[in-house]
Amino acid sequence: MSHARQMLDSYPRTVNVDRGVLAAAIDAISDCAQACTADTDADLSEQNLAEMVKCIRLCLDCTDICTATGGIISRLAEDDPSATRPLLEACVAICKTCGDECARHVHYEHCRVCEQACRRCERACRELLAALK
Amino acid sequence: MSHARQMLDSYPRTVNVDRGVLAAAIDAISDCAQACTADTDADLSEQNLAEMVKCIRLCLDCTDICTATGGIISRLAEDDPSATRPLLEACVAICKTCGDECARHVHYEHCRVCEQACRRCERACRELLAALK
Amino acid sequence: MSHARQMLDSYPRTVNVDRGVLAAAIDAISDCAQACTADTDADLSEQNLAEMVKCIRLCLDCTDICTATGGIISRLAEDDPSATRPLLEACVAICKTCGDECARHVHYEHCRVCEQACRRCERACRELLAALK
Amino acid sequence: MSHARQMLDSYPRTVNVDRGVLAAAIDAISDCAQACTADTDADLSEQNLAEMVKCIRLCLDCTDICTATGGIISRLAEDDPSATRPLLEACVAICKTCGDECARHVHYEHCRVCEQACRRCERACRELLAALK
Repeated sequence: MSHARQMLDSYPRTVNVDRGVLAAAIDAISDCAQACTADTDADLSEQNLAEMVKCIRLCLDCTDICTATGGIISRLAEDDPSATRPLLEACVAICKTCGDECARHVHYEHCRVCEQACRRCERACRELLAALK
Repeated sequence: MSHARQMLDSYPRTVNVDRGVLAAAIDAISDCAQACTADTDADLSEQNLAEMVKCIRLCLDCTDICTATGGIISRLAEDDPSATRPLLEACVAICKTCGDECARHVHYEHCRVCEQACRRCERACRELLAALK
Repeated sequence: MSHARQMLDSYPRTVNVDRGVLAAAIDAISDCAQACTADTDADLSEQNLAEMVKCIRLCLDCTDICTATGGIISRLAEDDPSATRPLLEACVAICKTCGDECARHVHYEHCRVCEQACRRCERACRELLAALK
Repeated sequence: MSHARQMLDSYPRTVNVDRGVLAAAIDAISDCAQACTADTDADLSEQNLAEMVKCIRLCLDCTDICTATGGIISRLAEDDPSATRPLLEACVAICKTCGDECARHVHYEHCRVCEQACRRCERACRELLAALK
């Protein structure tokens, strides 16, 4: 259980977006960043390393972009849409690409779980983008 | 719900530490990093800014150290104890200091919630340190 | 002096972009992330805190986005343009907004220096975007 | 050229440590974080992947710890030594371990350059630790 929703509910300023949608995005992003970090390490433990290289690189990208996006959407009071929107679009894109790559390795349970985390994050970021319109 | 435990359970190598303790630490660290980011922003929205400056700085430190610690303990296969132990000790220390400072502002609900996240993270990192012995 | 250019020159794969432009962007991004972190702390030390809040928030956003962008463009081998392009656009946007805000506080030397770091980073990211076309 | 020293020289509060030592540590840490990110990607491009796995993992750890340390030492005004000292010790340790591992692969120019970045960072963090005493 995260404290993301409680932090939003105690925020001293108005939050100009549905708090449920925002809290869901924050949680999905934290989770996806961690799952991709763990999947990188799990991939590095497999025998067929050459086939896992693309997955490793995309997981690293996904962690970096999710970490930044989680920071920015946790500080929405002084939101600069000219940065927040393309950042969320980058996050949707990398979650899609990374999820698709993980889906090619679902015979590895860790890639199957990581794919789920990526899909959930992609969906949550799309919903936040729609809610911010 | 995070996927941290599922990622650990599908890890291809042996994990030399109790998986429950490790998953709890990973979740508490992610949560604390986010709560501190949100609390920084909430603090910046209060009237008595001068009194919140110390809390803001400690929350920023706490987020940075938690983010690094979460990465390192998500990749425990090639663990270097000479780095992991002091890093966990730094994480325990900053969660303690930051939680203590938040406790001075519990009339703000956001500081009360952030204190909880810091205390949980401090406890989870102490337990992980003990389990790694 | 950074090792960014030497790392690029020793990269085992082809780099599909001008190495000078890429190294300049990597250096400008690292520098901007650090300058914004330092400026956040310097702002928090000023008397007129209420006037500095917007600058603090934008500096925090700028650090997060620069850190992610620096990671992604340091791993260009498996480049996913659907994520890299909007991320670079987000980086250009936040450097512009943050630089503009710092420019409002140039009576503070730290904001004047931070503005320079933001402008250099904005320019370097624009040049990289153009070079990636 | 970074703006780290200029940011320190314009800091509104007293900095309780030699500014030259601190600026050198900030620059070495930023550089090492980036070199390790680039070396991870370069390692992933080599043929003998199985031999590079340890180097990749240590480079990832080194980037994470350097990034956190760079943030904390850029905000020294509200320094909490109980966190800063073990964090710097963790940074020294991971730079040593990662540099030693890179030294085993100096037939790869990228590992040779990354080793240099790690050694410089280890030295700069040791000097900062001594200066903070």
